[in-house]
Amino acid sequence: MDRGLWVIKVGGAEGLNREGLADELAELYRRGQPWILVHGGSKQLDRVATALGHPPRFLTSPSGYVSRRTDRRTLEIFEMVYCGAANKGWVERLQARGVPAVGLSGLDGGLWRGPRKRAIRAVVDGRTVVVRDDYTGKVTEVNGALLRLLLEAGYVPVLTPPALSTEGEAINVDGDRAAAATAAALGAPLLILLSDVPGLLRDLKDPASRIPRLAADELEAARRRWARGRMGIKLLAAREALEGGVGRVILADGRLDRPIARALAGEGTEILDPLPAPPEGVP
Amino acid sequence: MDRGLWVIKVGGAEGLNREGLADELAELYRRGQPWILVHGGSKQLDRVATALGHPPRFLTSPSGYVSRRTDRRTLEIFEMVYCGAANKGWVERLQARGVPAVGLSGLDGGLWRGPRKRAIRAVVDGRTVVVRDDYTGKVTEVNGALLRLLLEAGYVPVLTPPALSTEGEAINVDGDRAAAATAAALGAPLLILLSDVPGLLRDLKDPASRIPRLAADELEAARRRWARGRMGIKLLAAREALEGGVGRVILADGRLDRPIARALAGEGTEILDPLPAPPEGVP
Repeated sequence: MDRGLWVIKVGGAEGLNREGLADELAELYRRGQPWILVHGGSKQLDRVATALGHPPRFLTSPSGYVSRRTDRRTLEIFEMVYCGAANKGWVERLQARGVPAVGLSGLDGGLWRGPRKRAIRAVVDGRTVVVRDDYTGKVTEVNGALLRLLLEAGYVPVLTPPALSTEGEAINVDGDRAAAATAAALGAPLLILLSDVPGLLRDLKDPASRIPRLAADELEAARRRWARGRMGIKLLAAREALEGGVGRVILADGRLDRPIARALAGEGTEILDPLPAPPEGVP
Repeated sequence: MDRGLWVIKVGGAEGLNREGLADELAELYRRGQPWILVHGGSKQLDRVATALGHPPRFLTSPSGYVSRRTDRRTLEIFEMVYCGAANKGWVERLQARGVPAVGLSGLDGGLWRGPRKRAIRAVVDGRTVVVRDDYTGKVTEVNGALLRLLLEAGYVPVLTPPALSTEGEAINVDGDRAAAATAAALGAPLLILLSDVPGLLRDLKDPASRIPRLAADELEAARRRWARGRMGIKLLAAREALEGGVGRVILADGRLDRPIARALAGEGTEILDPLPAPPEGVP
């Protein structure tokens, strides 16, 4: 077994098998395989924000990426759900299984830092508008020293957005890309992105159209051709991880039992840089 | 200046001067005075729980202590508010002032552990009933090693309930008493409990009736005579801190500017064990 650090990201969608994933993570911990968990909380955020009278809104960029409209009130509810409910839910799940989990947001110890986007271009009713009071940004710096301090003392970090802007504000950042930046910063050889799809599909309606393997240099073409919705960001995160030296990224299904073992067994979409040489004798 | 570790607890009441306290804490940090912050979030929890359709309920014990009824749904909202909104609010406030704050709950790394109360006796309509599905307990163990690891690496811990039960469940614990246990575990010479009252008052309606000083052996009598509502728990926390070797506990007003300097200057209720010897010549 590879004893390098594994970074596992689990999304915030409905229907993910969180108890099963916690079981598998606890088993990896007992077997001595080091890992870090990064998680989301998007669907729960939608529910709580709606219940609190501040329903979610989304922005579509001119290039077609969809992101959450994060005004200050959304950010406060975001922190409640991601850092409170979701993060402590994961920590409790893991502690109950004997894993010494320590939950941190990107704010804590300046774990994830990056610039806040001061102006976001979004397409509304066919017109491009500029949104200036959004709290969104991108992780450009990871405090690897804090993570190594905890790992070396035997703790298991469980990480969640938001991140800390260069001006010291909380900012919404994408969890997949933050996980990629974390894996790169720690020299992790493996990043697994678990969500509610089996991997990259040629046809969203047909799970059998899954692409089992991609070389890094095929990623961009595959993204343009097949990625819909969140998948575009996941492939962007995969590319950033590979560029950062992470050798292997797997997009896999978090709804199943033993999702990590299945991902490693080839049931997701695996992206390698470079693709291993073909077996002897293959032209 | 005393360079021992200071433990500062700030409550969750309305009207506390959180920005002013953050300013003062940042100044102490810059001057090299080490401290840990412990915080609550009770009023915000009442508001959010009500907005989410699960309004707060309270239990009164046969001996008159009032505690929050913490069923599993309350605990989930508790984690949202304390670990999400309040904790990350404090971390952001401090990070924006240059303090490398790391927010942790008592779950993280098993920071605060203790038994869950399996049966809580409460007085309802004059009858004593037993509540069995409550998630409440008491901190009996503090993971001082994790706090020292962070402090020695230059980070500033910001701590909040819940704690972790001996069975690995999240449990609601009193923040004042958790702060006392933390101060004792770390050998801190000073614990300051900031809330929305100026200290222990002989007459709740008269701030001029504040008792400026108590010896540890006067604490129990003072509690029985003057403590109302939350003040009883604060004096219990003070006693536990003193029993744990913390030399000085101050209850002081968190609504003012520079609340720590004021507390140290004698504007709260200071409890010492033992009381310093009287000046020379005094009989």
